[in-house]
Amino acid sequence: MPNSAGPAEPFRQTLINTERNINASAEITGRSVTLDCPTDWSVRTIALRGGKQEGVDLVVIDNGRLRISLIPTRGMGIFEVVMGDVRLGWDSPVREIVHPSFVTLQSRGGLGWLEGFNEFIVRCGMESCGAPGVDTFINNNGDEATMELTLHGKVANLPAQELEVIVERQPPHRIRVRGRVDERTMFGPKLELWTELSTEIGSNAFRICDVITNRGAGEQEFQMLYHCNVGRPLLQAGSTFLAPVERVTPINETAAKSVGRYAQFSGPQAGFVEQVYCMRPLAGEDGRTLTMLCNAHRDRGMSLSFRPSELPYLTLWKNTAAEADGYVTGIEPATGFPQNRALERKAGRVPRLAAGASRSMALDFAVLASADEVRRCADAIARVQSQRAPVVDEKPAKPL
Amino acid sequence: MPNSAGPAEPFRQTLINTERNINASAEITGRSVTLDCPTDWSVRTIALRGGKQEGVDLVVIDNGRLRISLIPTRGMGIFEVVMGDVRLGWDSPVREIVHPSFVTLQSRGGLGWLEGFNEFIVRCGMESCGAPGVDTFINNNGDEATMELTLHGKVANLPAQELEVIVERQPPHRIRVRGRVDERTMFGPKLELWTELSTEIGSNAFRICDVITNRGAGEQEFQMLYHCNVGRPLLQAGSTFLAPVERVTPINETAAKSVGRYAQFSGPQAGFVEQVYCMRPLAGEDGRTLTMLCNAHRDRGMSLSFRPSELPYLTLWKNTAAEADGYVTGIEPATGFPQNRALERKAGRVPRLAAGASRSMALDFAVLASADEVRRCADAIARVQSQRAPVVDEKPAKPL
Amino acid sequence: MPNSAGPAEPFRQTLINTERNINASAEITGRSVTLDCPTDWSVRTIALRGGKQEGVDLVVIDNGRLRISLIPTRGMGIFEVVMGDVRLGWDSPVREIVHPSFVTLQSRGGLGWLEGFNEFIVRCGMESCGAPGVDTFINNNGDEATMELTLHGKVANLPAQELEVIVERQPPHRIRVRGRVDERTMFGPKLELWTELSTEIGSNAFRICDVITNRGAGEQEFQMLYHCNVGRPLLQAGSTFLAPVERVTPINETAAKSVGRYAQFSGPQAGFVEQVYCMRPLAGEDGRTLTMLCNAHRDRGMSLSFRPSELPYLTLWKNTAAEADGYVTGIEPATGFPQNRALERKAGRVPRLAAGASRSMALDFAVLASADEVRRCADAIARVQSQRAPVVDEKPAKPL
Repeated sequence: MPNSAGPAEPFRQTLINTERNINASAEITGRSVTLDCPTDWSVRTIALRGGKQEGVDLVVIDNGRLRISLIPTRGMGIFEVVMGDVRLGWDSPVREIVHPSFVTLQSRGGLGWLEGFNEFIVRCGMESCGAPGVDTFINNNGDEATMELTLHGKVANLPAQELEVIVERQPPHRIRVRGRVDERTMFGPKLELWTELSTEIGSNAFRICDVITNRGAGEQEFQMLYHCNVGRPLLQAGSTFLAPVERVTPINETAAKSVGRYAQFSGPQAGFVEQVYCMRPLAGEDGRTLTMLCNAHRDRGMSLSFRPSELPYLTLWKNTAAEADGYVTGIEPATGFPQNRALERKAGRVPRLAAGASRSMALDFAVLASADEVRRCADAIARVQSQRAPVVDEKPAKPL
Repeated sequence: MPNSAGPAEPFRQTLINTERNINASAEITGRSVTLDCPTDWSVRTIALRGGKQEGVDLVVIDNGRLRISLIPTRGMGIFEVVMGDVRLGWDSPVREIVHPSFVTLQSRGGLGWLEGFNEFIVRCGMESCGAPGVDTFINNNGDEATMELTLHGKVANLPAQELEVIVERQPPHRIRVRGRVDERTMFGPKLELWTELSTEIGSNAFRICDVITNRGAGEQEFQMLYHCNVGRPLLQAGSTFLAPVERVTPINETAAKSVGRYAQFSGPQAGFVEQVYCMRPLAGEDGRTLTMLCNAHRDRGMSLSFRPSELPYLTLWKNTAAEADGYVTGIEPATGFPQNRALERKAGRVPRLAAGASRSMALDFAVLASADEVRRCADAIARVQSQRAPVVDEKPAKPL
Repeated sequence: MPNSAGPAEPFRQTLINTERNINASAEITGRSVTLDCPTDWSVRTIALRGGKQEGVDLVVIDNGRLRISLIPTRGMGIFEVVMGDVRLGWDSPVREIVHPSFVTLQSRGGLGWLEGFNEFIVRCGMESCGAPGVDTFINNNGDEATMELTLHGKVANLPAQELEVIVERQPPHRIRVRGRVDERTMFGPKLELWTELSTEIGSNAFRICDVITNRGAGEQEFQMLYHCNVGRPLLQAGSTFLAPVERVTPINETAAKSVGRYAQFSGPQAGFVEQVYCMRPLAGEDGRTLTMLCNAHRDRGMSLSFRPSELPYLTLWKNTAAEADGYVTGIEPATGFPQNRALERKAGRVPRLAAGASRSMALDFAVLASADEVRRCADAIARVQSQRAPVVDEKPAKPL
């Protein structure tokens, strides 16, 4: 049911609304919404069929330049973003977009999350993220009890309860897809995520604006990590990661051995064991940090900007394994590092929300399609870093 | 395919039948079935869409006065019953009626059941109910082995295999919705539940008649607890619970502290820790016990009557937490108390069914909509209690 | 979209293809495909509805004599095969064909697999099969970690990603149904199963040809066991199992007590505890072994032939329990015995696949419908056995 308000009001269409019992398909096009705009943009739903993708809904946002595939069924994750010859995304051993009902997070020693892991952007959280293993919680009797946390929490396997498309009728015609994902349970967290993915028509950029709210009556811990995963073509032998950082710390001995080359990537290597680097990003004068992954020729890249005041920690996951095993790197702005929550709590990196309180987090992405754009982004990163030299730890810190 | 038998035969319509591969929608109305009846009653199915409710089917029975929402997809639970300004039900932090495929009972230390918990009436059982934790069982080799029981068992997350609607053509035109839920596995329980929800047209009352049958060839334990959960408007500061009881025992020290006020309720209180009271209900001369929850003004209430010979134990769960955390009380007639099955077995409260044997359990509910009705119900409860004074334990009994 | 190639090319129709987003129904009949063939064969899909079977797709292949029910939604298992008065299959306590989203393998101490177990042929594997319990694996950090294996692994609860029907246009018009099932995860196995079920029009026989491929870049363990389960009418008091074997070893003391009668079956017996016999089958000159289950009158039977070079181990599972508890025997050609993988690895029975390597396994089944066919099959088995006398162990071997 398209909204037919006047031209001043943005276009709005509800795709999912559990209270109103709506789960609708849609095909929204520039021709019908932005009559004065020559760009041929669209927002379309696709219902996936067959195998473990049966029942998954995709929303494909094409702004005329970028094509973004959003997955409301999997916690509003983003499967891929394509612009010309650049694809933000990777080729996981998991080939389908897996419906949550086929994922058991408890599987394989708490690593079941990996059976559905193939997105470009997957949120980890919200009650917990990080490594599996035992942590404590307060049970219904008000007593401390223990539970086995599972890798990276639940939010990526929760479907959106609300989903709507909003399009500004005035140039530059920002397209917004807003979704709500609840991680709520009796005697547990009552966390609500409102996320907005938006992009302007014809732009090479897109933005994620998230707000997490504690809908419970008591204080509530939460964790959030944006697992942004990129493979070919940006990742290749000779690719570089750039970020202004205060400190870089290898997470373990394996990572420590290669810490001198932490920002450079090699080609696919069978048997490669992941290397993880924990960073404290630096903010520029505008309060933002800027990071980039660029290819070996430095003529293609992805930039990612965010506020360290919102997401103070940044993890670089280097997994330059064989293509068949998942050749990928993860750039992970977060509220902490991806260790088990028990360790993160001890380190003071598990934020808490008072009853009713919210926390906002925004991430700005752009696809860089020329040597000039890559150079300008590198220069901007260098300017932020110029405040101070990064500390690069030779050894893992214990505790981190 | 409505049944077109003569007026003497009841109307019958099959909604679900797995053997005949049927899962049908229906809209059954007084106009087409009970031509001589002026009341505008109906039985309608609703297919829920979006989020975690995708795939859930509801059956809404409107007898012209009560509107009952039944959930065949969730073990024939009852989401809510509405009559005028009274709603039997509550506002759980879990806002959707959750499809079982989104519930992992093993989650959060065996508390995953809570992620789908928001019904007015939810059955706990049938192989086990009560607190999670280790218990023994006999495995396929005939050996004693251990398993981690999960909170309140499986039955609330099993969909009905059969469902049919039957309407008496003669006044008072009882509407019956009958469903079968199997909890059957190889080398495990072969328990079959046939449940009938029924109500007469224009009545303020409804009845649940359950029969559990052991379809296995050996003796089989089972547990059943009817978790009947009520929030506003019946629950408020000053609400009262009335029941004729032989004995009331607080389940732990937290409950013991307030045992003197166990039958009174306070308003919502952030940080309130649940208080649980274990009762042995008294039967009147007709073999029935009668309980009531009424509001502070004693002009609205819910009565619940059952036979202690069928359900000898009654638990009162007081959870007058903040609205946001679930302001609710549970009145829970059962075959035992909601402890872990291992403890209940030691206490002799885990019944067994011989091969092929059945056990019936019936519960009669009514919505009381006037001070007069509340008073009469209170008087009836007092008459049953007049046999003997209740024993109120000051301390938890160990064992219970 | 039926393929309309010329008569020389086989008929092909795609039923499932996740890459092309296809999950289609089909009704393929002899009338439209094999115009010159008088036999009325068909391949039809059935979408199951209601209860725990909601969302399960069946493919029913009727070759004019055999009717085979294949379950792409459950790992390409075979629910039953019917020919005249013979049914290959059994009456499990689990009465529906259960959708994987209703199965939690971790349930009941790792025995959740049993909640969906009712097929004639169910594959156990591929990362692991056998008894639940702890085993080691290599995690994402390259470290040895432990996980709780669940009974018989995942493959039976994974839906097919691809499914196609191929029919030869030339006599004897072999009908092939080919499906792909992936058991792939990040930091875990990347195993791909291509399975082909085929039968000739009018034949009493059918064949399973499986190829397992390691799509990962490193060496990968796998296990595969074909759990072929038969109840009435072939299983009855006086039924016999015949197989040429090098050695028969009871798996435990319970089985040891009856090892002298391991090949004979009794009628249903309440409280019967399963007896499991581990065998090394003998191959004939053609490299094949031949086994048979026949009824008491020796006028009905099922033969099963395979290559010990492909499947070197054979387990006989005798479970002549009461009908209500599952009266059934399992004939289980496999890459090992159904113990926990940790034990099987120590015994050298967990095969490994190099990166990109495949292993083929084929099984040929026939329904024997006369005393003559049964006698000829028994004679053929005796000829293979005539090479050497079987060793029958009186006691369980430790280790096996």
